[in-house]
Amino acid sequence: MSTPVHALAALGSKQALQPFEFTPGPLGDEQVEIAVESCGLCHSDLSMLDNDWGASTYPFVPGHEVVGKVVELGPHTKRLKVGDRVGLGWNSGSCGACAQCLSGNQNLCPTAEATIIGRHGGFATRVRAHWTWLNPIPETLDASKAGPLFCGGITVFNPIIQCGVQPTDRVGVIGIGGLGHLALKFLRAWGCEVVAFTSSESKREEALQLGAHRTLNSRDKGDLKNAASSFDFILNTTNVALDWNTYIAALKPKGRLHTVGAVLQPLDLAAFPMISGQKSVSGSPIGSPATVDTMLEFCARHSIAPTTETFPMSRANEALDHLRSGKARYRIVLENDLNA
Amino acid sequence: MSTPVHALAALGSKQALQPFEFTPGPLGDEQVEIAVESCGLCHSDLSMLDNDWGASTYPFVPGHEVVGKVVELGPHTKRLKVGDRVGLGWNSGSCGACAQCLSGNQNLCPTAEATIIGRHGGFATRVRAHWTWLNPIPETLDASKAGPLFCGGITVFNPIIQCGVQPTDRVGVIGIGGLGHLALKFLRAWGCEVVAFTSSESKREEALQLGAHRTLNSRDKGDLKNAASSFDFILNTTNVALDWNTYIAALKPKGRLHTVGAVLQPLDLAAFPMISGQKSVSGSPIGSPATVDTMLEFCARHSIAPTTETFPMSRANEALDHLRSGKARYRIVLENDLNA
Repeated sequence: MSTPVHALAALGSKQALQPFEFTPGPLGDEQVEIAVESCGLCHSDLSMLDNDWGASTYPFVPGHEVVGKVVELGPHTKRLKVGDRVGLGWNSGSCGACAQCLSGNQNLCPTAEATIIGRHGGFATRVRAHWTWLNPIPETLDASKAGPLFCGGITVFNPIIQCGVQPTDRVGVIGIGGLGHLALKFLRAWGCEVVAFTSSESKREEALQLGAHRTLNSRDKGDLKNAASSFDFILNTTNVALDWNTYIAALKPKGRLHTVGAVLQPLDLAAFPMISGQKSVSGSPIGSPATVDTMLEFCARHSIAPTTETFPMSRANEALDHLRSGKARYRIVLENDLNA
Repeated sequence: MSTPVHALAALGSKQALQPFEFTPGPLGDEQVEIAVESCGLCHSDLSMLDNDWGASTYPFVPGHEVVGKVVELGPHTKRLKVGDRVGLGWNSGSCGACAQCLSGNQNLCPTAEATIIGRHGGFATRVRAHWTWLNPIPETLDASKAGPLFCGGITVFNPIIQCGVQPTDRVGVIGIGGLGHLALKFLRAWGCEVVAFTSSESKREEALQLGAHRTLNSRDKGDLKNAASSFDFILNTTNVALDWNTYIAALKPKGRLHTVGAVLQPLDLAAFPMISGQKSVSGSPIGSPATVDTMLEFCARHSIAPTTETFPMSRANEALDHLRSGKARYRIVLENDLNA
């Protein structure tokens, strides 16, 4: 018998969250149920709440940066046991049999399941996922802050792995927010020379504390022009249209501009500078389960944790307002106080 | 004393070539002079003749796909001796001391010299270059057809190396012309599954003979849609604006669209498909001297030669007209008959 789940749901687009109870069906053979301890709040929770991508269904339960403990396992699960503390991110399932899954790129599975699309997420007492997508959290990591690693964190850690960023590289991070602040921490620990691009005066000093060696004003054309041909790798974490060609110019020959920010306007890239400098532009989503494991180990070894603000989950609406205001520094975690 | 050079030059933009004689200054310490045997005709000779890029000076002597024999060496040259048969391509010099040169990426040297920019090219009895940029031609290679390898050839061979194309990859080549026909030959010999994208009905059968396993109509949206998520690597050799996002969609996850065609319109790339599929877009110029050596060895081992049409150099204007008409199949070589 499945346990009733107490959750917070929006009943329609852009509506406030309210208490919502549901009884999930039988646990899938390869699924695991976890009792939610905390859940990060990600900007894509807002996008889904507002149905910005046309993919939302209501009642909508947000939450895809979950930390919790295993309470029940389907008969065909592996790797986990009851009581294990695990994290769950954007994906909650993948087919396991396609070329991408078989290659360890489960994050690129064309039929991957998303935790908050067509199913209920982690603003709840319990949430389920395929065992593959629940990563054990190392004991040396502060679990109360770990939630944001499972979406925001892996989104910026993954490109470091995928793009082969080297400790000898000079790297830039555009946008110092929920994703960017973690990118600074990762890249500093990676051994790189780290430069933060930000237009926010108030974030300049903070960027240095987060790991940047120096900052450049992303709205100052002079700053960017002076940086011409100097970066091996630039990571864009914003979803606003930028002067992409100026960033291409800021790359060394063979350099790469990589975006994890899903900017809606087309990237209007001039071909000639990419050709003459052998430069590239690329993107990536969240990482595979194996890459999440690698990230967690790296965080544990380097004492890397998201910089968080905490709200009780019952006050999720306040937390959402805080996120919408752009004032979160840098990632919000909701501690579960819902009545189980 | 330097020998007077008999050449063909345009005295102004878009003018016909006419006989032109000049006496070069003293040979540079690191320079080599070669007696031109033949010279390929590249589309960028036309662009420079017409001053399309605003970089031309007149009298303008075209020619940057030169095959010839070493006749004189400066005192600080290496690797070559009088009588060696060598090839010369787009670049005729590089600084030798910058980070790119020291890394073996002389083709990315910011002060690299171009054979036909600010100096005279290979439509001449003699031409000079820094010794680094003169590659010995293997004896097993047909030197009379080798010229086009040094610009057209290396331009499409270089990305195969730089982008790590694997023999197990399914690759596409957009545009079956001077560059594209060589890309088909290289990639077929590389072991790939090779698909030619062409809108020219007449080139479909030829593409198969050149090495393609099959062809797709690049103007047929149905053809391209059916190819969704099926290519590891797509090489664009055209310089016209394409529906780039359809080609991005034709890539598998982690696939790459690479352009060597210097299209003037911006690439209007949608970010989201690049992010969700971890796809990339890149460009590259001609290759380094070491990569040219690798290409020549590969060509010798696999009996790869450009498919050429031959004109006497004295009839270069006819050859230029033939190239402008789009009827060259696939690369023109001028045999030197200028009076030395």
